[in-house]
Amino acid sequence: MQRVAVLTEPDHVVLEEREIPEPGPGQVQVAVRAVSVCGSDVHYYDHGRIGGFVMHGPLVLGHETSGVVSAVGPEVEAGPGGGVTVGTRVAVEPQAECGRCEQCRQGRYHLCPQIAFFATPPIDGSFAEYVVVPAHRAHPVPDSLSDEAAALIEPLSVALHAAAKADIGPGTRVLVSGAGPVGLLCLQVALARGAAAVVVTDVMALRREAATEYGATATVDANDHDTALAAVDDVLGQADVVLECTGVQPAVDLAVAATAPAATVVLVGTGATVTLALDVVQSRELVVKGTFRYAHVYPAAIELAASGRIRLDSMVTSHHPLEDAVGALLAARRDPLALKAVVHP
Amino acid sequence: MQRVAVLTEPDHVVLEEREIPEPGPGQVQVAVRAVSVCGSDVHYYDHGRIGGFVMHGPLVLGHETSGVVSAVGPEVEAGPGGGVTVGTRVAVEPQAECGRCEQCRQGRYHLCPQIAFFATPPIDGSFAEYVVVPAHRAHPVPDSLSDEAAALIEPLSVALHAAAKADIGPGTRVLVSGAGPVGLLCLQVALARGAAAVVVTDVMALRREAATEYGATATVDANDHDTALAAVDDVLGQADVVLECTGVQPAVDLAVAATAPAATVVLVGTGATVTLALDVVQSRELVVKGTFRYAHVYPAAIELAASGRIRLDSMVTSHHPLEDAVGALLAARRDPLALKAVVHP
Amino acid sequence: MQRVAVLTEPDHVVLEEREIPEPGPGQVQVAVRAVSVCGSDVHYYDHGRIGGFVMHGPLVLGHETSGVVSAVGPEVEAGPGGGVTVGTRVAVEPQAECGRCEQCRQGRYHLCPQIAFFATPPIDGSFAEYVVVPAHRAHPVPDSLSDEAAALIEPLSVALHAAAKADIGPGTRVLVSGAGPVGLLCLQVALARGAAAVVVTDVMALRREAATEYGATATVDANDHDTALAAVDDVLGQADVVLECTGVQPAVDLAVAATAPAATVVLVGTGATVTLALDVVQSRELVVKGTFRYAHVYPAAIELAASGRIRLDSMVTSHHPLEDAVGALLAARRDPLALKAVVHP
Amino acid sequence: MQRVAVLTEPDHVVLEEREIPEPGPGQVQVAVRAVSVCGSDVHYYDHGRIGGFVMHGPLVLGHETSGVVSAVGPEVEAGPGGGVTVGTRVAVEPQAECGRCEQCRQGRYHLCPQIAFFATPPIDGSFAEYVVVPAHRAHPVPDSLSDEAAALIEPLSVALHAAAKADIGPGTRVLVSGAGPVGLLCLQVALARGAAAVVVTDVMALRREAATEYGATATVDANDHDTALAAVDDVLGQADVVLECTGVQPAVDLAVAATAPAATVVLVGTGATVTLALDVVQSRELVVKGTFRYAHVYPAAIELAASGRIRLDSMVTSHHPLEDAVGALLAARRDPLALKAVVHP
Repeated sequence: MQRVAVLTEPDHVVLEEREIPEPGPGQVQVAVRAVSVCGSDVHYYDHGRIGGFVMHGPLVLGHETSGVVSAVGPEVEAGPGGGVTVGTRVAVEPQAECGRCEQCRQGRYHLCPQIAFFATPPIDGSFAEYVVVPAHRAHPVPDSLSDEAAALIEPLSVALHAAAKADIGPGTRVLVSGAGPVGLLCLQVALARGAAAVVVTDVMALRREAATEYGATATVDANDHDTALAAVDDVLGQADVVLECTGVQPAVDLAVAATAPAATVVLVGTGATVTLALDVVQSRELVVKGTFRYAHVYPAAIELAASGRIRLDSMVTSHHPLEDAVGALLAARRDPLALKAVVHP
Repeated sequence: MQRVAVLTEPDHVVLEEREIPEPGPGQVQVAVRAVSVCGSDVHYYDHGRIGGFVMHGPLVLGHETSGVVSAVGPEVEAGPGGGVTVGTRVAVEPQAECGRCEQCRQGRYHLCPQIAFFATPPIDGSFAEYVVVPAHRAHPVPDSLSDEAAALIEPLSVALHAAAKADIGPGTRVLVSGAGPVGLLCLQVALARGAAAVVVTDVMALRREAATEYGATATVDANDHDTALAAVDDVLGQADVVLECTGVQPAVDLAVAATAPAATVVLVGTGATVTLALDVVQSRELVVKGTFRYAHVYPAAIELAASGRIRLDSMVTSHHPLEDAVGALLAARRDPLALKAVVHP
Repeated sequence: MQRVAVLTEPDHVVLEEREIPEPGPGQVQVAVRAVSVCGSDVHYYDHGRIGGFVMHGPLVLGHETSGVVSAVGPEVEAGPGGGVTVGTRVAVEPQAECGRCEQCRQGRYHLCPQIAFFATPPIDGSFAEYVVVPAHRAHPVPDSLSDEAAALIEPLSVALHAAAKADIGPGTRVLVSGAGPVGLLCLQVALARGAAAVVVTDVMALRREAATEYGATATVDANDHDTALAAVDDVLGQADVVLECTGVQPAVDLAVAATAPAATVVLVGTGATVTLALDVVQSRELVVKGTFRYAHVYPAAIELAASGRIRLDSMVTSHHPLEDAVGALLAARRDPLALKAVVHP
Repeated sequence: MQRVAVLTEPDHVVLEEREIPEPGPGQVQVAVRAVSVCGSDVHYYDHGRIGGFVMHGPLVLGHETSGVVSAVGPEVEAGPGGGVTVGTRVAVEPQAECGRCEQCRQGRYHLCPQIAFFATPPIDGSFAEYVVVPAHRAHPVPDSLSDEAAALIEPLSVALHAAAKADIGPGTRVLVSGAGPVGLLCLQVALARGAAAVVVTDVMALRREAATEYGATATVDANDHDTALAAVDDVLGQADVVLECTGVQPAVDLAVAATAPAATVVLVGTGATVTLALDVVQSRELVVKGTFRYAHVYPAAIELAASGRIRLDSMVTSHHPLEDAVGALLAARRDPLALKAVVHP
C-alpha cells in the first residue's frame, strides 16, 4: 500500500492508503521523489475545475514529477537515447497518448483527444508515493540534476514548447508578459536561444526583481498601460516576439500594443477568453499562437538544465512532506516571493 | 483638366475639375478605365473614417483600379517581367512604399509605416480620369482580361495574400466565413490551390447561393451557432483552415469552434476587436493570423484570372459613369444580390 | 490458396500457389483488383536490387494497389474519416510502420527504420490475389474512382508529397524535369496547386507531347543543355521550384541552372549520386530537398482524383492478367508511349 | 590623398596613393580602423579569381571592416535603431544593393544581381584608409566592442546567417564540419542558439583543440571516414543539423552520412561542385541549403558579440600595418594556429 494525497472536493485534501499501481505492458512504475506545485493544482484546489475540465470525484493533484524507476512492465523496449531500468532517476512526462489517432500519427501527441494527463480529471496525479507511466515518458536525468530540478523539467518544457513556436534567436527582441514561474522560465529560455533582449513586465515589484535576477534585459511595471508601453519602447523598441504568460486582458492589451510588424504573440497564460485589437492584429499582420503543454521536448529541457544554461534549483522556495500537500498548494498565496513549492512523497 | 469624384464629407460626393497629375521620376500616369467599389469605400462614404483612418479633408475614393498607361515619367526602368509604356493596359496596385524603411527592406512593403494607399486619408484614390503610380505598381494585363476584371485584381490580391498565409493545398479542409465579394474570392482561391473541400458560411441565403455558384463544396446557414457548427462538421469534419471574411463576432466564434487541432485562422474581415475562446485557441494550438492588404501578389493574381482559374467578370453586377459614383457606392445596399459595382471614369 | 507472381531471380517470374494471409490485430485482408507497375518493379526484375535494397530470396513485386476489403482482423477501430469493413473498395497504402520509434512519434512514419514496404526486400508486394495491411493503410475510395485509378493513388501520392515540399501555389513558376509517369503526375499536381506556369523537360518527343496533353504550359527538349536552358528561360524566366523526376545528372544540371534565387529543388528521381554546382547552390541560396515515398497524403490524393482535378485513368496504357505480370513489367520497354501497365490478379 | 594596398595581379600587392572617396547621397565615408583577412582575400591573392569572379584589373582586397565615420553625405536619414554621424564607430557591412530589383524588394538584398560587394571584382575593398558605404550599411557598435571585434562582425554574420537557415535551438544536435574561423564561429553561434550538443570535425589536431576551447561538446578527427562517423555517432547520435564549413568532398560525405532523418545540411564552405549520396538524401529526406554571405544580421551579430555571448577578440592572432598587407594575407599559411590576421590601415 502507498500513501496518496487526495483532493476530495475544493479545499479538502486527505491522505489515503491506496494500492500501489503495477506497470502494464510498455509501462514503468516510478517511486516519486519530488513534485513541484503548478498554478493549475492550486486552481483545482480552489475551484474544483479549470474551464471545461471539471472534477466529478476525488482527484490526486500534482504533475511536475521526478522519481526513480521502481518496476518495469512487460514489453518495455529501449527507446531513442536508451532505455530505463529499475533504479534509473527520471523526470516524468505526465501524459499518455493513445498512439493511434490522427493527432498522434501527425506527431502532435499532446493534442490527442484521448490524452491522459496527470491531475486532470479523471486522471490522478503524483501527490503519491508511486505512479505508473509509459516507459517512453520516463526520461532519464543525469546526476547533476537534483530531484527538484527534475520535477521542474515539466514547467521548463512548457516554456520551451511555447518559445519554439516563436522562432526566437539572435536578433529577436522578446517581451515576456508576467514574471511568475512560467514567465521566468520563458525568460530563461529566450536567453538560452540567443535573444537580443528580453523585457519582462509584471504588476508586482518583487516579481520584477526576480526577473532581473534571472537575466531580464529590463523589467517594466505593467500597472499603467501607456507608461508601460512607453517603457517597453524605450528599452526594446517593438517586440518581435511576445510570450504572454498571464492570461489577463490588460497584459494581453499591452503585449499586442508592444508588437513590431509581423511579430508573433504566443498565448501561454490561461483564461476564458482573450480580446484582441483587430486593427492592430491586421495592420501589423501579427501571428497569434495558442500553446498547449508540450510535445517532444523533455530531452531538450533536461539537457539545457543539466548543462547549467537554465537555472531551476533556485526557483524552489519551499519543501513539504506529502502530509503537508496543502501547505505546498498555499505557499504562493502566503508568500509573494514564493516561486515553486515542492512536495516530497 | 480632369474630372474627379470627391467625398467632401460623409454622404456628400461632388464632381470637381482638377489638374491632371504628371508622373514624377519612376512613376507612370494611368488613364483610368474601371474602378470597382470596395466595402471600405462605402464605409468612408457613410462614416468618414475606418478605425484610426480619419478624413480631415476632401477625399477621392476608389482603389480597385485598371486603366491604360497614358504617360511615363523619367527614370522608369523595365522591371521583372518587362516594363510598361504608353498604351500598356494595366491593373493598378494602389500603394506606394517608401522603399527605405525596415519593413520595405525586409520585403514587407505593404507594412511600410509611410505607405501611401489610394483612398486612405489623406491619399486620394481613383474615382478620377487619371492617376499617377510608381511604374512598378502598374502591372500589365493581357487582352484576355477585361477592364473590370483588371480592376478586380485588387480584391483578388487580398484573397490570394490571405490564403497564402494558411498554406492551403491538396487535402486542406477550408472554411470560408462570409460570402461577400472577398469571401467568394477566398473560396475561389482555396479551390485554385487544390483544397480538398471548401465550406462557406453566411447568414443570407442569396449569398450562400452565390457561394454554391462559385464552387463551394457546401454552404452553411450561420444564423444559429450550434446548428451551423453541426452542419460544418457534417460536411467538413473540422476545418484545417478558416478564412474569416466578416469581422463579426458570432462568425469568429463559429470559425474558432469549427477548427481542427493545429488549424490556422486568418482574420480577413475588419472590425474593432475580436474575442477568442482562449481555451480553444490553446487546447487546439490554433494559429490566428492578421492579414493586411497584400504584397508581391499582383502578377500571380493576373495570371490566375487570365488563365480562367478565377472568375472575376461574373462578379460585376452594375456599371456606373463617374457622375454616378454614389450609385456605385450604394449599389450593394440597394440590391442584396449585388457583388461588385464598377465606376468607369 | 491463392495465386502469386513471384520474382525468383532477375528475369524470372513464376506463378505460385500460396496460403491466403489472414489479417492479424489491427489489420485487414484486401482482395486485389489492380496493381499498376512502377519503375522500381522493373528495376528489381532487371537487376534484383535497387541501391542498398537487395533481393536475397524470392520477392513478390507490385506496390501500387487497389482492391476490396475481404476480411477484417481483430481490434480494428474506425479511424479518421470512418473505417473499413468487408466490401469496402480501397486504395492500399503499401507500408506498415512500427508506430513506436522516434520517426513514427514525430509524424514521419515513412522514415521509420522498421518500415515494411511492399515489394521491397524482404517484404512481398501485391502481384497476388490477396494482401494484408494495417487497417488504417486501407483507404476507402468512392465509386467514381476506377480500380486502376485507385491503384494509381500510390504514384499520385509520391507526386503530392514531393510537391508539398516545395510550397507550390499561385505565382509559382515550376519546372518538371522528366515526363515519365511521375513527372506527368507532378505536372498535374503543380497545376492543381495553382502554379502560374509549369514547363516540362524531356529528351523524348513523345513524352513531351504527353506533357502537353496533361496541361504543361510548355515543353522543352532536354537534349542540349544550353538550348534547353534558353528555352526554359524564354517561357518561364527562372524556376521558383524544380521537381526533378529523372535522377539523371544532365537533367539535374539543367534543373539547377534554371533556378531563380531562393528556389527549391526537389529530388524525386532516384539514382546513386547527384552532383551540384556548389557556387550556384550558394549564390542563389537554393534549397535542395530529398523526397521519399509519402506520408499522410492518401486521403488528399483520393479526393483530388475523385473530384476530377487529376486525371489518372488516361495514364493506363495496358491491362494484364496475373499470369502476364512479365508483360506488364516489360510494357514500357516495348512501347515508348506506354505510361502505366496494370496487372489484374 | 590616402594610401591603399592594391593587388595588381596574383602575388603582387603594392601601396598606392589614391583620392579619398567622397560620400554621395545616402552614403557615409568611414576611416578604416581594422580589416580582418578572409580566406577569399587569400584566394584572390593566390589565383586572381574565385570561381566565376575574375580580376580583370587591379583590386583592393579586404571586406571585414571596422572604422569611424569621417564624413556624411547628403540625404542620409536616421534608420531603424538610430543613425550615424561623424565620429560614430561602425562595423561596415560591405555590400551595396540596387534597392529596386525583385530580390531587393523581396527582402533578399544579398541576392541582388547588381550587388556591389567589397573586394569582389571589380569592386574595391577596404585595405585602404577610407571607404565609402551606404549609410544604412554602417552599423554603430558600442564601446565594449574592440575595432578588431567590429571587423569580425562580418564573418560572424556569415555564421549567423548560415545557422539561421537550420533552425538550431534547444534539443538540436549539431555537427560543424571544419574548425577554421568560420567553423569556430558557427560553433559559437550554435551554442548561443541553445543547441543540445555541437560536435566539430577537422583533419588537424590543432584546429580541433581550438574547437574545444570555443566550447565544442566533442571534436572528431575527420581523417578516416568510418572512424569519424562512428565517433560522431558515439557522442551525438545522428546530427539534426550540419553546418558544412569546408567545401571539401570527404567532409561533405561525412556530413551527409552523419545526418538524422529530416536533418538540414547547410553548405557554408565554398568549392566548385559537391556530390551527394542521392539515396541518403532521399531516404532521410534531407534538406540541403546553400548559404550566401548574409542579410539583415549585422545588428544581431553586434549585439551577440557586445553581450559577450560570442568571443571574437581571442580569434585575432596577428596585427599588421597596411604596408604589411601581404604578411596578413600569408599569416594563416605560415602559422597553423593562426585564425585571424588583422590589417590596421
